[in-house]
Amino acid sequence: MFTGLSAFPLTPVPGNGDVDEKAYAALVERLAAAGVDSIGALGSTGSYAYLTREERARVARIAVEHADGVPVIVGIGALRTRQVLQAAEDAQNAGAAGVLLAPVSYQPLTDDDVFGLFEEVTANLSIPLVIYDNPGTTHFAFTDELYARLARLPRVASLKIPPLPADPARARARVEHLRRLLPAAVTIGTSGDAAAARGLNAGCDAWYSVIGGTFPEPALALTRAAQAGRHRQALEESRRLEPLWDLFARHGSLRVVAAAAAHLGLTARRNLPLPLRGLNAEERARLVTVVEQLRLHT
Amino acid sequence: MFTGLSAFPLTPVPGNGDVDEKAYAALVERLAAAGVDSIGALGSTGSYAYLTREERARVARIAVEHADGVPVIVGIGALRTRQVLQAAEDAQNAGAAGVLLAPVSYQPLTDDDVFGLFEEVTANLSIPLVIYDNPGTTHFAFTDELYARLARLPRVASLKIPPLPADPARARARVEHLRRLLPAAVTIGTSGDAAAARGLNAGCDAWYSVIGGTFPEPALALTRAAQAGRHRQALEESRRLEPLWDLFARHGSLRVVAAAAAHLGLTARRNLPLPLRGLNAEERARLVTVVEQLRLHT
Repeated sequence: MFTGLSAFPLTPVPGNGDVDEKAYAALVERLAAAGVDSIGALGSTGSYAYLTREERARVARIAVEHADGVPVIVGIGALRTRQVLQAAEDAQNAGAAGVLLAPVSYQPLTDDDVFGLFEEVTANLSIPLVIYDNPGTTHFAFTDELYARLARLPRVASLKIPPLPADPARARARVEHLRRLLPAAVTIGTSGDAAAARGLNAGCDAWYSVIGGTFPEPALALTRAAQAGRHRQALEESRRLEPLWDLFARHGSLRVVAAAAAHLGLTARRNLPLPLRGLNAEERARLVTVVEQLRLHT
Repeated sequence: MFTGLSAFPLTPVPGNGDVDEKAYAALVERLAAAGVDSIGALGSTGSYAYLTREERARVARIAVEHADGVPVIVGIGALRTRQVLQAAEDAQNAGAAGVLLAPVSYQPLTDDDVFGLFEEVTANLSIPLVIYDNPGTTHFAFTDELYARLARLPRVASLKIPPLPADPARARARVEHLRRLLPAAVTIGTSGDAAAARGLNAGCDAWYSVIGGTFPEPALALTRAAQAGRHRQALEESRRLEPLWDLFARHGSLRVVAAAAAHLGLTARRNLPLPLRGLNAEERARLVTVVEQLRLHT
């Protein structure tokens, strides 16, 4: 389950309004129909951090109900351990196949804080867990030593890492180093879409993908090429999408895929929780041009 | 109200348990009895970010009920604007004299996101608001231009700034620069306790104080000296507390005052929300030594 393309759909949240559950169900169905390997509900792209316990529990249930048997991994991160434990319980009750946990912070966290969090959560879980390392949103920096400690906890099944070095030899060396640190059963998943091809080519087992949640076809093409050992083709697929990666770098991937989903008619135009205002008119126009040029709208 | 010593009490939260409301009420009463100028309930030191809407509404009510007429400023920050609006409503219903708003982030925020947040919140407020700039927890960097735009919104009454430069002339120049940017009625409050004396000496109107929430007497001594123009004495008071500032720098002020409050018997030993584990045994022993040497326990 923690290999191949894990696609992270948006949770459409219109400004100060309620989750658009109908649009969300359709987004999930679309991913299942496209043949993604797993669906990452309530990831960063799914705006989990902005939603209440009740909203998250409903979104998890909708994801599982509409995934047509594709495994659903549900994000359970929260600032307080008690809230993480509740989200884990709700995800399990919804029928999630796994959970994804990031050490979200307000007060900076120590390594012991983070180890204690994962220790307590995994002790209370009956489904597998993905360790989610996303320093850009959590502001927590994992050390390799902490990776190794956490990966030995029960239920830990995968590690989602930040982008690997651009140099292929260094990227491969990094993955090999991580393999030696981690138990053999723990898969390694790359994140940061612009670095996905290099990550899969360097030996990562999975791609935890933002673009895959809105444009599953190009993400699948890239993933299947890398999985078949067609490394050049995977890099070509990624290179083709560079105008999109440029927009990701400039605005953050969430704002870009949110505007793209609205342009494709998959959601209403307002689909992000405030205070996130999304792209302005000029930025949207640029995105639409990119979507059309890359033929992502078909 | 937004001048002098604003004291920020802990909200005692034992691990995964419920807020210790009795201990909290006593902490607030203690500050009112000491004669602080205002009480900052549910600031960063009050762990607002870790609590649910319902918990925060109750804490706000307890603070106002036990403040004996001292104005209570309630923190209303949250990741989602809708949640901020709800917290503002709850704070007003509780009888808060003002609110404190930090642009808490998960996805990095743009200046327009933050302006939009404050614009919407202030349009719905009927009590004054303090802009809370705390980059260490929010990971948002204000520009002077944004300060100026925000300070012109209705209801904005004060700006809580990060530590000023150590050099007195540069600190004073910075305050004078801010005065020119801001409407005359908007006060400037320093934060970062180790920089409080220099901030007040440089012309700040208020000190939004962590230590004041647990040790109001030394914080009042420092504040009153600076307010009376006894700048050397204010610096002396601060210098005396340097062993405490050292611990703040090492562990974060919240962990240190939480351990101090437990040592003084003001709260149970477990008084922070997990995943925050607080100081370990060795660090606690060091803190106890400092508290005794500085005679903070009397």
